[in-house]
Amino acid sequence: MRVLVTGAAGFLGGELLRRLTGVHEVLALDSRQGVEAAHWLVGDLADPKLVGDAERLAPDALVHLATVPGGAAEQDPALAWRINVEAGQELVTRLAARRAGLRVVFASSIAVLGALEGAVDDQTPLRPRLLYGAHKAIMEAWLGTLSRRGDIEAVSLRLPGLVARPRGPSGMKSAFMSDIFHAALAREPFVAPVGPGATMWLMSSARGADNFVHALTVPVREPFAFTLPAVRASMGELAAEIARQAGSDPAQISYRPDAGLEDDFGRYPPLAARFAREQGFEDDGDLASLVASALATIRETRT
Amino acid sequence: MRVLVTGAAGFLGGELLRRLTGVHEVLALDSRQGVEAAHWLVGDLADPKLVGDAERLAPDALVHLATVPGGAAEQDPALAWRINVEAGQELVTRLAARRAGLRVVFASSIAVLGALEGAVDDQTPLRPRLLYGAHKAIMEAWLGTLSRRGDIEAVSLRLPGLVARPRGPSGMKSAFMSDIFHAALAREPFVAPVGPGATMWLMSSARGADNFVHALTVPVREPFAFTLPAVRASMGELAAEIARQAGSDPAQISYRPDAGLEDDFGRYPPLAARFAREQGFEDDGDLASLVASALATIRETRT
Repeated sequence: MRVLVTGAAGFLGGELLRRLTGVHEVLALDSRQGVEAAHWLVGDLADPKLVGDAERLAPDALVHLATVPGGAAEQDPALAWRINVEAGQELVTRLAARRAGLRVVFASSIAVLGALEGAVDDQTPLRPRLLYGAHKAIMEAWLGTLSRRGDIEAVSLRLPGLVARPRGPSGMKSAFMSDIFHAALAREPFVAPVGPGATMWLMSSARGADNFVHALTVPVREPFAFTLPAVRASMGELAAEIARQAGSDPAQISYRPDAGLEDDFGRYPPLAARFAREQGFEDDGDLASLVASALATIRETRT
Repeated sequence: MRVLVTGAAGFLGGELLRRLTGVHEVLALDSRQGVEAAHWLVGDLADPKLVGDAERLAPDALVHLATVPGGAAEQDPALAWRINVEAGQELVTRLAARRAGLRVVFASSIAVLGALEGAVDDQTPLRPRLLYGAHKAIMEAWLGTLSRRGDIEAVSLRLPGLVARPRGPSGMKSAFMSDIFHAALAREPFVAPVGPGATMWLMSSARGADNFVHALTVPVREPFAFTLPAVRASMGELAAEIARQAGSDPAQISYRPDAGLEDDFGRYPPLAARFAREQGFEDDGDLASLVASALATIRETRT
């Protein structure tokens, strides 16, 4: 199968490319070239020429990771709309016109859910508050409609907080969930912008990439968009487990909660991701396994 | 209140303008000029200059009726996306930037629901199959997010089949629901493209316009998009009631069901539009009142 991966130079893209290379023919698209994959398409996702190049290569599947993330979208709403909605819609439309039944695996986000009250399941209505969450909900709706019509086969995976992203500015408002891992390994103090009782849904990037690989061949059916299972943990539990496994000093972690971040990322209730589990998508099992996976990925990337 | 109405030269726009004139300051926008309202903005909704003109007039409220309807959207998906999604998004964004808390009343459609099984209520998930339905669902999601953020106050009304639209090509796949009224008044034979047992959700255009007026001042709360109540009737019941009130010969009505139209428009189950009723939105009460209202509007328009 010929698979086009957008956002391929990102950290999740990199993990995905490693898994796909040798199994599928991989076309990698991003604004900068990453290290792996045979064929790179480098440029702006909103550039018709680049999209034309991708179209001529006639992929059988699209894994659409490229996005303007939450914080960056709030900074530049017009750019975010153009990339997250218009460019994605255009890319899918053009690829689907060439390849009937195009498999589209879309990186959606739990940001589509918005503020939550009570437990979450597959029936929870979507009430995004971040522009980013609205953009993802919009793409879910569009891809679902095209799937219902038989034009494409879409699987939109709502990702929880992925750990650990690389250090440095990512435009993600949830970057703190990853930064705490790096701080522990570097024996640096870390100030968490949410309180120890803030609850999050988390997944290791390795497990995230596994789920994307699974989505390339899973039978597609309604609902075409669903929430992935995730490990639910509080910031305090996460901090303690990271310190234990990294051998760092828990006293280096302090808390200075930001009300906005707590609202957006620190109030995730229990999650029953029944549909995703039935389809064979998995979380990391427990917090210890999740932390071990995230630390292992950081250490591998360093060497 | 200064109210901008798009699609103002359409049949629903005309009914709405008659109700708003004298009560509010009305700005009317459409690709051609209608007969009423003080201030017309004529041009393409996707034209930045026209949108700029509207923006400078700083409306307090937007009633967004303009759309590329179902059948026309299937004929030209790119145009429909541009008008139904991109132009709407751009217009709302620009008006909201000038007027905090802009009231936006959006003409959504029951097409957002898609194929239905069992009764419909406010929790029924959105599974559109028509591109038009997807576009409306996308706009609902966008406007809901902006409302949740406090940028605007959106009310998205999911309209059932409105009767009676004027005769002639409208780009609506559901035009047959209106054409039967005109045929009865003209004493012409009518071939229904759905069977007599096909069930529909209907509202008179007069009641539809009343509901839009109500939406301009109703308190806004979650969910910001909801299905309007409607009279549910079969094609056979509708035909009999029209013939009775119009004094036409029921034998002039015959049936030649089209499977696609039956699927899209002829399988509407019982509807409980609880949220809309609580907010004060109403249907026509019963089939006899609905038919009387539709016939009265046609007769008024003729004179």
